[in-house]
Amino acid sequence: MNVIRHTMSLVSLGVFQLGRRTRSQHFRGFLLGTGLGLTAFSSVTYAQAEAQNAKVNRKLDTSRFMAEPITDATVLLGDKANMRHRMELMIMEIQAEFCRALESEEMCGKKFQVDRWQREEGGGGITCVIQDGDVFEKAGVNISVVTGWLPPAAVQQMRSRGKDLTEGVKLPFFASGVSAVIHPRNPHIPTIHFNYRYFEVETPDGKKQWWFGGGTDLTPYYLDEKDARHFHQTLKSACDEHNTTYYPKFKKWCDDYFRIKHRSESRGIGGIFFDDIDSPNQEAAFNFVTGCAKAVIPSYMPLVQKHKNREYGNNERQWQLLRRGRYVEFNLIYDRGTKFGLYTPGARYESILMSLPLHARWEYMHEPKATSKEGELMKVLKNPKDWV
Amino acid sequence: MNVIRHTMSLVSLGVFQLGRRTRSQHFRGFLLGTGLGLTAFSSVTYAQAEAQNAKVNRKLDTSRFMAEPITDATVLLGDKANMRHRMELMIMEIQAEFCRALESEEMCGKKFQVDRWQREEGGGGITCVIQDGDVFEKAGVNISVVTGWLPPAAVQQMRSRGKDLTEGVKLPFFASGVSAVIHPRNPHIPTIHFNYRYFEVETPDGKKQWWFGGGTDLTPYYLDEKDARHFHQTLKSACDEHNTTYYPKFKKWCDDYFRIKHRSESRGIGGIFFDDIDSPNQEAAFNFVTGCAKAVIPSYMPLVQKHKNREYGNNERQWQLLRRGRYVEFNLIYDRGTKFGLYTPGARYESILMSLPLHARWEYMHEPKATSKEGELMKVLKNPKDWV
Repeated sequence: MNVIRHTMSLVSLGVFQLGRRTRSQHFRGFLLGTGLGLTAFSSVTYAQAEAQNAKVNRKLDTSRFMAEPITDATVLLGDKANMRHRMELMIMEIQAEFCRALESEEMCGKKFQVDRWQREEGGGGITCVIQDGDVFEKAGVNISVVTGWLPPAAVQQMRSRGKDLTEGVKLPFFASGVSAVIHPRNPHIPTIHFNYRYFEVETPDGKKQWWFGGGTDLTPYYLDEKDARHFHQTLKSACDEHNTTYYPKFKKWCDDYFRIKHRSESRGIGGIFFDDIDSPNQEAAFNFVTGCAKAVIPSYMPLVQKHKNREYGNNERQWQLLRRGRYVEFNLIYDRGTKFGLYTPGARYESILMSLPLHARWEYMHEPKATSKEGELMKVLKNPKDWV
Repeated sequence: MNVIRHTMSLVSLGVFQLGRRTRSQHFRGFLLGTGLGLTAFSSVTYAQAEAQNAKVNRKLDTSRFMAEPITDATVLLGDKANMRHRMELMIMEIQAEFCRALESEEMCGKKFQVDRWQREEGGGGITCVIQDGDVFEKAGVNISVVTGWLPPAAVQQMRSRGKDLTEGVKLPFFASGVSAVIHPRNPHIPTIHFNYRYFEVETPDGKKQWWFGGGTDLTPYYLDEKDARHFHQTLKSACDEHNTTYYPKFKKWCDDYFRIKHRSESRGIGGIFFDDIDSPNQEAAFNFVTGCAKAVIPSYMPLVQKHKNREYGNNERQWQLLRRGRYVEFNLIYDRGTKFGLYTPGARYESILMSLPLHARWEYMHEPKATSKEGELMKVLKNPKDWV
């Protein structure tokens, strides 16, 4: 056990240094697989996994992860009830599963570039990117686990959302989350984005406030109603398992949030979006968020498989690039996460901006014909509809 | 005279309608040229032009403009001392001169698309765009003359800059300006941006506050030190004619303003930038701004002519696209004008976003070698230097 730990910390040290300047490609290949551990996550619930045998308790198998967790493995296992640790393990697993699923669709064996990085102010992250793949033009899957001090502007913004936080002071915070944006090459495959996060803020009286947030949404370039129904139905089922009021509420929230206001159009056909989830209790909230994160693969990968070999021409490509321009507009002008990230001192902007497509296009006064396929998409972007 | 006026208002009516949905290409071709008028602007000062013969006073020759002015010609000539009108005529002229200069570099005769538009809340503008030209991949030259009510957020923002405005109330404003962003196709020709504007706000006690703002800045893809010196020297000379303290002050302001903060790099190699110019008096401030606007063509067109036939390859093109991605980042995340525009209800977003390039690219973790030509540019973007 000591030997393993020692090996890990040496590798870890190397990666911390590398992570600041250069690439640590396929770093996970150097980590030792030691048995059961978290591989069980994909088929059993977190609670079940925790109840497994003593071996699991003593060893953390990081071989399935894209890199070693941000928090030291012994610390993670030392206090397993701690929601910070449970969340970190969950997002590590989601990241690895999704990256593997995406890699398996690449036809020429393209793999994710893996960058493990640390943040001077506390914590770090693992950014996985495929660029110029044959199926994925750009795909980023990121986890981060950070601590620091909330700048007054962020406190102000949270207060405006109803958080009971003292104004004008810096408050210690913890944030962890997984987020991904996948821009496929084929215009018939939609772009997907998801983000699931856990937040803690400590108030001056020593009390802790916590909440979960997240969402998954789809941005097609051409409307395939069957895809739209499948995607929304998968998210709805994941929500319904926990609370049947969630899907309709969070579907609307998503439509409202991903709106390119100056164009009066949506970024895509929505999905679910929520924030400030702190009820009915932490356990239930965590299970709900985990359920949503687990629904990403079944909601999306069938669409990739269905469309990845479809033919397309220059018209479709140009339209895809124009829509990617709209994606950039939303992310840089309106997205709260991007803004919060870029305005946070010491933020790793490469990880935040991995969401931007490899290519985007802006044409002055472009408007597709209402009767064209492009026009069909615009109709549902102008007026979001219910899919299930 | 009545006939001419009648003809104009009919054409104008048609264009107002067209402007909202469709294109009014080369509309200026339909206007009647009636003599001297403002054609004289390019070689004499505004004051000289005003002192010319009675014919000028009675007739406004709009044939040199890209479209009919936003304010009715008789109103413009009826109160010639009014700064609103003087500014409108100045920006109309700057727009036309610059568009003609750019068109004359296009080798296959590409002309500007001209859209004259009106704003429901008051005023309007003329947006001129070349897209997919052989020399200019995308070029936008825009004027606008608008009135309305400043939203409280804008009042707040102006107060933070030291304006004596009442908080929490909507204030009537007038704004007019010319702005342009030119993205050439050849990566050896820099992108240029300029904007010159005049602002009036009326306070509840009936007092009027006014000021001028503006600037011109250059964004090369490859550093040509001779170009940089020529560009800055031209701007410096324009400033020095009015106040020798202006250039150093406004050069630094420009370096500070066009900073992509999250990347700790500048958008380009700067130029001049200023705001809130209300001294020594309105006449002098107007003459200074006019002088700066007149300096655009001599600062930039020689660079276009020098480089437009240079050879380049895919490497240069890809680097240009990456830098255009950075341009998009600055404009959508930091640029005050873009934000003010997009958050203003009823704003014509197509005119605001004409500044975005036709194509842009984002690569994860792209960093050119320090010794490469691209690396040479990065050095001056990381640490702005003095050119004259």
